[in-house]
Amino acid sequence: MLSKSDVTDLIYEKKRTAGLSWATIAADIGMSEVFVTSACLGMNSLPKDKAEALTSNLGLPQEAAIVLAEFPNKIFAQAIPTDPCIYRFYEIMGVYGQSLKELIQEKGGDGIMSAIDFDMSVEKVPYEKGDRIEIKMSGKFLAYNAW
Amino acid sequence: MLSKSDVTDLIYEKKRTAGLSWATIAADIGMSEVFVTSACLGMNSLPKDKAEALTSNLGLPQEAAIVLAEFPNKIFAQAIPTDPCIYRFYEIMGVYGQSLKELIQEKGGDGIMSAIDFDMSVEKVPYEKGDRIEIKMSGKFLAYNAW
Amino acid sequence: MLSKSDVTDLIYEKKRTAGLSWATIAADIGMSEVFVTSACLGMNSLPKDKAEALTSNLGLPQEAAIVLAEFPNKIFAQAIPTDPCIYRFYEIMGVYGQSLKELIQEKGGDGIMSAIDFDMSVEKVPYEKGDRIEIKMSGKFLAYNAW
Amino acid sequence: MLSKSDVTDLIYEKKRTAGLSWATIAADIGMSEVFVTSACLGMNSLPKDKAEALTSNLGLPQEAAIVLAEFPNKIFAQAIPTDPCIYRFYEIMGVYGQSLKELIQEKGGDGIMSAIDFDMSVEKVPYEKGDRIEIKMSGKFLAYNAW
Amino acid sequence: MLSKSDVTDLIYEKKRTAGLSWATIAADIGMSEVFVTSACLGMNSLPKDKAEALTSNLGLPQEAAIVLAEFPNKIFAQAIPTDPCIYRFYEIMGVYGQSLKELIQEKGGDGIMSAIDFDMSVEKVPYEKGDRIEIKMSGKFLAYNAW
Amino acid sequence: MLSKSDVTDLIYEKKRTAGLSWATIAADIGMSEVFVTSACLGMNSLPKDKAEALTSNLGLPQEAAIVLAEFPNKIFAQAIPTDPCIYRFYEIMGVYGQSLKELIQEKGGDGIMSAIDFDMSVEKVPYEKGDRIEIKMSGKFLAYNAW
Amino acid sequence: MLSKSDVTDLIYEKKRTAGLSWATIAADIGMSEVFVTSACLGMNSLPKDKAEALTSNLGLPQEAAIVLAEFPNKIFAQAIPTDPCIYRFYEIMGVYGQSLKELIQEKGGDGIMSAIDFDMSVEKVPYEKGDRIEIKMSGKFLAYNAW
Amino acid sequence: MLSKSDVTDLIYEKKRTAGLSWATIAADIGMSEVFVTSACLGMNSLPKDKAEALTSNLGLPQEAAIVLAEFPNKIFAQAIPTDPCIYRFYEIMGVYGQSLKELIQEKGGDGIMSAIDFDMSVEKVPYEKGDRIEIKMSGKFLAYNAW
Amino acid sequence: MLSKSDVTDLIYEKKRTAGLSWATIAADIGMSEVFVTSACLGMNSLPKDKAEALTSNLGLPQEAAIVLAEFPNKIFAQAIPTDPCIYRFYEIMGVYGQSLKELIQEKGGDGIMSAIDFDMSVEKVPYEKGDRIEIKMSGKFLAYNAW
Amino acid sequence: MLSKSDVTDLIYEKKRTAGLSWATIAADIGMSEVFVTSACLGMNSLPKDKAEALTSNLGLPQEAAIVLAEFPNKIFAQAIPTDPCIYRFYEIMGVYGQSLKELIQEKGGDGIMSAIDFDMSVEKVPYEKGDRIEIKMSGKFLAYNAW
Repeated sequence: MLSKSDVTDLIYEKKRTAGLSWATIAADIGMSEVFVTSACLGMNSLPKDKAEALTSNLGLPQEAAIVLAEFPNKIFAQAIPTDPCIYRFYEIMGVYGQSLKELIQEKGGDGIMSAIDFDMSVEKVPYEKGDRIEIKMSGKFLAYNAW
Repeated sequence: MLSKSDVTDLIYEKKRTAGLSWATIAADIGMSEVFVTSACLGMNSLPKDKAEALTSNLGLPQEAAIVLAEFPNKIFAQAIPTDPCIYRFYEIMGVYGQSLKELIQEKGGDGIMSAIDFDMSVEKVPYEKGDRIEIKMSGKFLAYNAW
Repeated sequence: MLSKSDVTDLIYEKKRTAGLSWATIAADIGMSEVFVTSACLGMNSLPKDKAEALTSNLGLPQEAAIVLAEFPNKIFAQAIPTDPCIYRFYEIMGVYGQSLKELIQEKGGDGIMSAIDFDMSVEKVPYEKGDRIEIKMSGKFLAYNAW
Repeated sequence: MLSKSDVTDLIYEKKRTAGLSWATIAADIGMSEVFVTSACLGMNSLPKDKAEALTSNLGLPQEAAIVLAEFPNKIFAQAIPTDPCIYRFYEIMGVYGQSLKELIQEKGGDGIMSAIDFDMSVEKVPYEKGDRIEIKMSGKFLAYNAW
Repeated sequence: MLSKSDVTDLIYEKKRTAGLSWATIAADIGMSEVFVTSACLGMNSLPKDKAEALTSNLGLPQEAAIVLAEFPNKIFAQAIPTDPCIYRFYEIMGVYGQSLKELIQEKGGDGIMSAIDFDMSVEKVPYEKGDRIEIKMSGKFLAYNAW
Repeated sequence: MLSKSDVTDLIYEKKRTAGLSWATIAADIGMSEVFVTSACLGMNSLPKDKAEALTSNLGLPQEAAIVLAEFPNKIFAQAIPTDPCIYRFYEIMGVYGQSLKELIQEKGGDGIMSAIDFDMSVEKVPYEKGDRIEIKMSGKFLAYNAW
Repeated sequence: MLSKSDVTDLIYEKKRTAGLSWATIAADIGMSEVFVTSACLGMNSLPKDKAEALTSNLGLPQEAAIVLAEFPNKIFAQAIPTDPCIYRFYEIMGVYGQSLKELIQEKGGDGIMSAIDFDMSVEKVPYEKGDRIEIKMSGKFLAYNAW
Repeated sequence: MLSKSDVTDLIYEKKRTAGLSWATIAADIGMSEVFVTSACLGMNSLPKDKAEALTSNLGLPQEAAIVLAEFPNKIFAQAIPTDPCIYRFYEIMGVYGQSLKELIQEKGGDGIMSAIDFDMSVEKVPYEKGDRIEIKMSGKFLAYNAW
Repeated sequence: MLSKSDVTDLIYEKKRTAGLSWATIAADIGMSEVFVTSACLGMNSLPKDKAEALTSNLGLPQEAAIVLAEFPNKIFAQAIPTDPCIYRFYEIMGVYGQSLKELIQEKGGDGIMSAIDFDMSVEKVPYEKGDRIEIKMSGKFLAYNAW
Repeated sequence: MLSKSDVTDLIYEKKRTAGLSWATIAADIGMSEVFVTSACLGMNSLPKDKAEALTSNLGLPQEAAIVLAEFPNKIFAQAIPTDPCIYRFYEIMGVYGQSLKELIQEKGGDGIMSAIDFDMSVEKVPYEKGDRIEIKMSGKFLAYNAW
């Protein structure tokens, strides 16, 4: 029985041998790069038709489509990530987390930004003093309930 | 001798008694909300003239301007934040961190987004199915050096 | 300047000397026991009018009303609680957490129960083989966004 | 020799290929969803006759019935769960744990709610502003012994 | 307002200056040594009349009786105790914990020994090859509920 | 080469298929239940003749006798045990550890109860208000050396 | 009421102002350097007469003698020590701990070296290639009990 | 390719089947017990000729000599050891570490005992009140550099 | 499909059997020792042509060149390294980290030394009182952005 | 009695009011910047005459000279530093630590670089593509002892 992690390995292998990019894998099923990458890494579930399209596009075994549509267990392997590229985001949240809370709650009252009703994009943008990476996140504002 | 944390307390007290917002505190010295809030919370240093303007605007003691311009020790009190509003960002990085790495490096080669040459904004945006919080981050792309 | 924790101490002191119960403190401002207790312990913010009513009912200083209405930093002092009464809930979530996830997602699709748009009650119910404690939780179902 | 974890894998495989739900698996042996799911995940033991019925219903090997009736070692893989659906319950206990203790002990004296003589249910309830998940827990009140 | 920890300090001070023992403090209120010691250390609550008797016997301020009867927050300062005398009990549970589970469940079925409906004693017993410490624990057997 | 853990698996398998109890396994070699169970779980070494008797009684391979008599590495898999039956003992030591220390040292002077020159038993005792589990521990008193 | 830590501070202050050494403090009461130092640091209790002698020799307040003779709570402030001088001993035990166990048990059977019936010395010894520190430890061999 | 850990297993197997002791294994290559044991357990590297002698003496495959002479990665599997025989050394360092630092630095100035230019022995010594284990450590004194 | 860790094993095997050094492996592809070693250990990616040269020089399978050029996940296996040779660097950063920050920021303003636009060398230098190891690091100064 | 930490505060205060730099503080006593800064932060001891010179130069109370010359307890407040400027060094050691070990031991045999007989410098060096920070470390090579 294929696991999420088996399917991730199959996709990595296909990417290496066929020289594919996440950008084309995502575009070929008409979804965003971030979401499709996260689903291929086992952190999200694809809608059934998208899972089948991706499975077919990459020539994966049929069972992979079922696996990609199953609801994942989101396990963070490292409480504090060590890879520098990922750690920088952890650091940003350590440095700016309290400030984000102050501003979200100043703008919306006591509440939070949802991490579930949520989307995100990442782009590299040319800039004279050196290219920049731009991240955009959008999540529904959820107010705390008083009862 | 005033510490960063003493100055943060003075600012919170002024905010409570004068009913100020971070938005106006930042606008009054012509800088962004996220950066000014983070500096007031002791996580960044203000340029000298901005520190003096803020100190004067809020009627803080003169020494506060020196303190706000000093370079901070950025200590994250909690390795894993517990406040739900801040935890959601930790969760987002746990769920999407590996995907961000895949995409940043697919777009730019082996490298990272800087958390130092970096800026960020947060807005609440009206939306028919419920208002949304939108975060934008921009950091310089830094390529790993091979030597 | 009063902190959330100062106000909690004032309420505990008033409870001890006046022999009050959380039940009456909550009923006197027309809100639920669980929510009012959590706000008095600094884990939630009261609506402004409720904060003023509670402050007035208990004879606390005026500033307490402002503090009770401020948005709290929710800090869990212990990652794993040691008090047996609280630990049992941690244990329940350790034992049944994965089962709750399976059933919530079987019933609603890939998603979660909100801990923000959320309410809860606790009652002691007489029962022939020994009284029972009954807890009810209700949270909005939030579906993961695919984009 | 089959382990609890082997049997869990067999059940997941059967669920995937036969398209079963926990609801029907539980109903077919006349027990509750939460308890049966937790037993299938290796966190509880089924009564012998129920274990045999489930094994027979799902067409598992005979040895599975013995395994399902054996007393489990309840190991929580993660001290702090990372899956958002499970984390929210951890968060609820962090935010409301002390309040639950205050109220349980106000209603019953110095004591706790048992996590052993305990049952629990979970339902999705339609609601105009969005469906809600409702959890009910019931545990025997146990008073601390003084001697 | 006196805290549990303040009262513990008062009792230690009285013990040092008056040269009292836990044995006599406990005997004077007609309760066991282990329970009374644990209540004086802030880990249990005394029944109201016993709290008053102890307060009067030791000449503590009146408020101490209220504090000793309040329900405590049982906080273990160290997840792994370092004092050798206490660590040995941690070690015993590490070495024999799984064996105790096997035998309790072999004798009683799937269940546990309660740590709430529980009592304990400790004695030093003369023995030719060197005195021995004898600990006795007794807790109600609680069977897991299947539902 | 058989490891301690291999031998534990062989014993569990024999217990399951032959329907044996720890009580009879221990009685058949004339030793106590707790000690024999702990040795079968790899936490103690059996005397050579007892190891051979147990190996022969259960029909294990000859090498098992050597393994059971070898001195074990006592590794606690979990610093804080999660199984409720074992956790309760951890909790008891957290709640009563300091009290045990006070009483052992009041009775014997500065010293500890040995966990090496040590024995232990566990029984289920019928009781009108519900059966009880009774644990007895006995360890040599060791006085700290001053030099 | 003086605590162990207060007395340690008094001794350090006396050492600084009077320019004393641990060697003379220990010699003046006729005990070993390691033991006396550890008692002054709050990690051991002095016999009553020695505590009085030390208190008198250093001109400490009378209460210090009672405190030095009280049985200490041995709390290790750091699970892994960071001071290089202390860390090296932690490292030695990490590197050689398993080897010491193999050799102690090869020489004495299944058992341990006591850390309670124990003494220790430390000397600096001149040596042509550079002075050496020599540590000697001696502890009673304790055999595991089989029962 | 044989790893350090493979070679350790081969040596343990040879020890079990041939009934060897660490004492004879070490004596046969003319080195100390502690060092040879630590090298066999993968915590040190043997000089090339000694590695060949040991490999030949025990009848291990030729490659083992290369492996035994390779420089090891010294990984401590447990930050806090749980085996009682090893834990006692951790406890000794927790209790006496600060005292050792005080005395080493009183005798030698600001500096440490090297754990690299270091040797150690362990003996069992008969003694009327019970045999004792004696450990001797010797390490070069290294003074901190000021520059 | 070969992983980074498989390729590391292949290189170690080749080093052992062919008696190669990192110095020659690096020199043969015209890059620095530190960088090439880190890439062979899976902590950096080699430029494509260098990866092919190294693969060819060492006679590794073709796929190894692809793997060596892939962007690695930099996972630190131990948050606090235990190997003495690596721990000393951790210790240096613990002891001198705050001093480095003070001096970098005194010389350059609020900012950091990049660990990405970074290079490093290590040499052994003969010295009369004993050879010394010399490490040089160079990283781009990055100033914090104020916005 | 002044502590190391009190003296650090006095020096910071003098630096702020007199606008001093570490560079001049160090130059004025003829020692290196890194070492003097680390001693002022309480991580090293100054030679007696240097401590007196620094105390006199900065106009600190006489007792400060004694304190600056006392041997410090080197406590790392954070096992993993969070300040970005310090974290980058932790990251460098995580990424390159194993490589440094490989190269040090390839050049010198089984051994380490001393962190005690050690010195270090930090400079900002102008460079056309942006200024660089250069760190140099030098420590004595210590060979492991075989005995």
